[in-house]
Amino acid sequence: MMDIDGWREKIDGIDEELVRLLSARAAAALAIGELKRTSELPVYEPQREKTVFEHVRRVNPGPLSEAQMVDIYERIIDVMRSLQKQSS
Amino acid sequence: MMDIDGWREKIDGIDEELVRLLSARAAAALAIGELKRTSELPVYEPQREKTVFEHVRRVNPGPLSEAQMVDIYERIIDVMRSLQKQSS
Repeated sequence: MMDIDGWREKIDGIDEELVRLLSARAAAALAIGELKRTSELPVYEPQREKTVFEHVRRVNPGPLSEAQMVDIYERIIDVMRSLQKQSS
Repeated sequence: MMDIDGWREKIDGIDEELVRLLSARAAAALAIGELKRTSELPVYEPQREKTVFEHVRRVNPGPLSEAQMVDIYERIIDVMRSLQKQSS
């Protein structure tokens, strides 16, 4: 059985992966923002955001509730949107 | 060069990984909460949270700024804390 320090080491490893993936997601959001500008598409697309939340809810295995996972994702999407705006 | 649909497929894949890692992090937080209860340690440890934020800032490669990454992590930590509380 793992002790608290063991679990914390595990969390530190997970955090490095999370930061890597959030950074990759941010780079993809910037690329999309750039493509939208050159093709004059609207930057804000509520239907796409809805699809992202539905997807996240569908693949959430727990132990976080649907509301808790959506709570985290709302912040992720907010930050990605502000990144796209600042680069325009 | 990837088009918008290509980038979105990439983001959908990243989101599945993010949900998987957030769920693993939540399971670890629950395990720590349980160990703290059985050993009568305090549930809230500000020093540990400080260490988590420092770690995240240190490994952040961009394009998200330090403030943007911390913004996302504040929500993650808030949700993990409320998960630990509801299970007690």
